[in-house]
Amino acid sequence: MKTENLKLYQSNASPNSRRVRIYLAERGICFALVPVDLGAKEQFSSAFAAINPRRVVPALVLGDGTTIGEVSAIWRYFEEAYPERPLMGTAPKEKALASMWERRVELEGFAAVMETVRNKAPHLRGRAISGPHDYEQIPAIVDRGLRRIQDFYDDLEARLAASPFVAGEQYTVADITGLVTIDFASKALSLPMPDGTSTGCAIASAERTSTEHPAGRSGRNCARLCPVP
Amino acid sequence: MKTENLKLYQSNASPNSRRVRIYLAERGICFALVPVDLGAKEQFSSAFAAINPRRVVPALVLGDGTTIGEVSAIWRYFEEAYPERPLMGTAPKEKALASMWERRVELEGFAAVMETVRNKAPHLRGRAISGPHDYEQIPAIVDRGLRRIQDFYDDLEARLAASPFVAGEQYTVADITGLVTIDFASKALSLPMPDGTSTGCAIASAERTSTEHPAGRSGRNCARLCPVP
Repeated sequence: MKTENLKLYQSNASPNSRRVRIYLAERGICFALVPVDLGAKEQFSSAFAAINPRRVVPALVLGDGTTIGEVSAIWRYFEEAYPERPLMGTAPKEKALASMWERRVELEGFAAVMETVRNKAPHLRGRAISGPHDYEQIPAIVDRGLRRIQDFYDDLEARLAASPFVAGEQYTVADITGLVTIDFASKALSLPMPDGTSTGCAIASAERTSTEHPAGRSGRNCARLCPVP
Repeated sequence: MKTENLKLYQSNASPNSRRVRIYLAERGICFALVPVDLGAKEQFSSAFAAINPRRVVPALVLGDGTTIGEVSAIWRYFEEAYPERPLMGTAPKEKALASMWERRVELEGFAAVMETVRNKAPHLRGRAISGPHDYEQIPAIVDRGLRRIQDFYDDLEARLAASPFVAGEQYTVADITGLVTIDFASKALSLPMPDGTSTGCAIASAERTSTEHPAGRSGRNCARLCPVP
């Protein structure tokens, strides 16, 4: 799909960046991905602060220089600017349901994994919340987080036993966040979904989804598919 | 504005419900508000679980029986179904910016106040996170929350020194969440914005906004304006 002059600042190591990469690959939208080296703390550089003062990736820069941050806002931009084959619903009811389910998966799944990792990992000491301010880690959040992730897996399993996709009959951004959440928990916390769950479901396991669903596959390789010019 | 057969299950004591009430009042959308008595734990009743299994308010029930939960998803429904005078932007860029700024205010302001209150209040022991699962309070989150709210106030002050409204030139849902956040912190934590901040800004203080801005006023009285039939 032809796009205006866009740039996505992102990192292959960032689960939030991956949520956008999978979305773009699924919709066939290809433009410049600009790598931000989180290992070298490039997100805290003055050069990047001029692009996104919140100092996080991903950040979408439009042709007029406007920066759109936050995954859901970046998705929203593409849904509105390139409306063919949307991933956040078409009619008002489906748009609202896609928004509701994606938010639930994010708050109860993705955010639970994120806060567990950020309050646990030694290299994130003093950075327990992403963004411009520094906050110390709270060990009790890690214990709670492990319970939250298990509760999320149980709830997701129940939902996908009743519905082909998280938000209903169609694949949406809620499935993308679900996939990235499971992969993130598996890799960063060695907490995959247990064997035997989600039989026959759309995102039965991160590995199966990544293998069988084009979004899972292409999302993993989107940086390669969309090279920086 | 004439609406289809809608019902909003909500509580006058719920800040999330208030975000929707202000939105509806601002847009002149009036329909049945159905009270849910949080003091009597009505949200945990089996009758309400059948309406919203997440057991939280607000919840919008459409004419066909579909329940839309989550404030941002309820807003999205009204933006799409009743598109005149939207509060989440018109062009793609403005929609994305409204979404970005509202999310930032919610994550860094509203959610910080909410987690501080839920981890502090004696009557919320065992309910530190809203939703279907019970989690114990973590006292360290309260101390961190007070710092987060101060950081949020500083960031909001800086933003409103540079922009007439949170998301730019127009009043949007980001301002609604900002107003409710400041009121919520003032009432539940005795943490209003300090005197002298936000001079000339759109949401200079919760009290001034509530008094001078129609949304602030009508939001407070929306339950009365829109009685249950």
